[in-house]
Amino acid sequence: MTAQFSFDLKATDGKARTGVIQTPRGDIRTPAFMPVGTAATVKAMMPESVRSTGADILLGNTYHLMLRPTAERIDRLGGLHKFMNWDRPILTDSGGFQVMSLAGLRKLTEQGVTFKSHIDGSKHELTPERSMEIQRLLGSDIVMCFDECPALPADRDRIAESMRLSMRWAERSRVAFGDRPGHALFGIQQGGLEQDFREESAEALKEIGFEGYAVGGLAVGEGQEAMFGCLDYAPDMLPKDRPRYLMGVGKPDDIVGAVKRGIDMMDCVLPSRSGRTGQAFTRKGVVNIKNARHADDPRQLDEECSCPACQNYSRAYLHHVFRSNEMISGMLLTWHNLQYFQDIMAGMRDAISAGTFEAWEKDFHEGRAQGDIDPL
Amino acid sequence: MTAQFSFDLKATDGKARTGVIQTPRGDIRTPAFMPVGTAATVKAMMPESVRSTGADILLGNTYHLMLRPTAERIDRLGGLHKFMNWDRPILTDSGGFQVMSLAGLRKLTEQGVTFKSHIDGSKHELTPERSMEIQRLLGSDIVMCFDECPALPADRDRIAESMRLSMRWAERSRVAFGDRPGHALFGIQQGGLEQDFREESAEALKEIGFEGYAVGGLAVGEGQEAMFGCLDYAPDMLPKDRPRYLMGVGKPDDIVGAVKRGIDMMDCVLPSRSGRTGQAFTRKGVVNIKNARHADDPRQLDEECSCPACQNYSRAYLHHVFRSNEMISGMLLTWHNLQYFQDIMAGMRDAISAGTFEAWEKDFHEGRAQGDIDPL
Repeated sequence: MTAQFSFDLKATDGKARTGVIQTPRGDIRTPAFMPVGTAATVKAMMPESVRSTGADILLGNTYHLMLRPTAERIDRLGGLHKFMNWDRPILTDSGGFQVMSLAGLRKLTEQGVTFKSHIDGSKHELTPERSMEIQRLLGSDIVMCFDECPALPADRDRIAESMRLSMRWAERSRVAFGDRPGHALFGIQQGGLEQDFREESAEALKEIGFEGYAVGGLAVGEGQEAMFGCLDYAPDMLPKDRPRYLMGVGKPDDIVGAVKRGIDMMDCVLPSRSGRTGQAFTRKGVVNIKNARHADDPRQLDEECSCPACQNYSRAYLHHVFRSNEMISGMLLTWHNLQYFQDIMAGMRDAISAGTFEAWEKDFHEGRAQGDIDPL
Repeated sequence: MTAQFSFDLKATDGKARTGVIQTPRGDIRTPAFMPVGTAATVKAMMPESVRSTGADILLGNTYHLMLRPTAERIDRLGGLHKFMNWDRPILTDSGGFQVMSLAGLRKLTEQGVTFKSHIDGSKHELTPERSMEIQRLLGSDIVMCFDECPALPADRDRIAESMRLSMRWAERSRVAFGDRPGHALFGIQQGGLEQDFREESAEALKEIGFEGYAVGGLAVGEGQEAMFGCLDYAPDMLPKDRPRYLMGVGKPDDIVGAVKRGIDMMDCVLPSRSGRTGQAFTRKGVVNIKNARHADDPRQLDEECSCPACQNYSRAYLHHVFRSNEMISGMLLTWHNLQYFQDIMAGMRDAISAGTFEAWEKDFHEGRAQGDIDPL
């Protein structure tokens, strides 16, 4: 344990990097995948089960938590870690992205955003200063700057205007964050798919100075090819000695492609959300457990997986409990998906350390290209 | 471990009894509470978590399992224990009671019951012979006779007619069950609240001979006072050297009152169903976690409880996740309720062994009469 926040880059293989983020609440092995605990719970999972998959850090959503149960209440109760029984690091987003995607009646000004709660219609305001205050009340270990980003495609003027607003908000976030040893503030690069704006944004952030840097404004509808095109240059613009976080990504092959391009951290609701709808990610591609072909199948979901769904149950059971709307369906498939995502991260960390990332990546893609095992 | 099914009565205190049912799949400490795993899962729980609460045996529902995924499928997959990852004893009901409460278009004859599935409207038949076959295919350790029972109140003629039909079915169940070492068949006493019919039923069952005897036809709307009135005599009519099972009971004070009257086994969906609707049973009575009084309460649900809900979370958290419709709400409250029910059973077993059941019962009622802790 350390009293400070720091990043130790251990090895690189091509652009892929592996290292350790040290925090007072424990180490985060990178590349790291952060399960999403939106409303102070990773849906369908006990936190000790999330930890058992190999997760070193969770993501919490400022937007959801500020509305319910509120940041002030969580603060009174001793902070988010204690509240949700997760004593390891937590990263919180700024609320900006989710206001734009979930809230009603949004109004954006230089000052910030006013909006109506999607839960009860109550009116709220988020500004860089308020976002920093909320994330402090939550007790977040890694705080994200308050930013704004357009859905893609968008025209260059809209992207530039939005990026420059986010950079002014980044400056205000840095000031409002203040001096908090052991906690980190991450800046967020914007600029859409425009290389010159990405450069301008990176320069603005470096000028301010952050403990880590996120690539924001991707995975918003542009598609994998365009995202990878941007990731071919965007991470290189950020300091090598700080963690780089790609927000809201993604599918297994998105994650691998991002790490290959120099990303250290990611988060996504996909493994948990898919788990609840009967979709499992495996070493041989995606399995839809509701498909009738699984009804009599005694085999395990993924024969190389160590999770309880694979170790203790047949596909037939997983099919049965999904069809029967039993809660254990979401519990087991979420656990499996989180385990698989963490196994990918561990595999990449080992391969980068060993200098064998390219071979690992080839195996990864070949396994998935095989497709699921044949029906019996 | 034993290759045979047997019951060892260890101690009595008044009419209350404690002992051990030995089966090839493990011992069942009595008095025993059996969590209900209707569709091959105790809702919202992993089986290892159910075991951790102290449960020695689960109940499975023949009616649900015969419809989905079907007994034949479970048999092909290696039996219910393997299917649902529970290697300890399982008792299955006969399907008769649930056909009467859930299925559509029922037709009752001397032969058995035809009905339509509540899931897809398909037509099915249950007879004593078919019920025995299904329970054998499931791999049940304790099999229940196929029976029929009227809702109460019912007139004496209806009760007598129904009871005598059930006794003829009990005879057919015994024949169809055959010789299955290590497995048990339990007869079910019927007769409503009519002492003479209970006596007639008990005599008929003893004449046939069973490994255990259930008191059936109670907890069907007659109320606690009437049920206890019946339990004041009904268990005494059954053999002392065999386990006595009260079906479908009940609330904590029902359970304690039943054990006091000589019952050894019980089952009920109450702890799991209540857990999913935000109702927690505690040593100080019932807590409705959705109540606003809990929103800021940092205290644990039941300060004497060892379950994860009580050890790791505040009432405020449990309130928050219930209000947010998060799955962990049902997971934690179900776990708590099952732990509390098992703690009651363990407390009664210890008290009966020590000859202090009366004092234990007084403490139990006094604690619950206190009511929940005052709001902050």
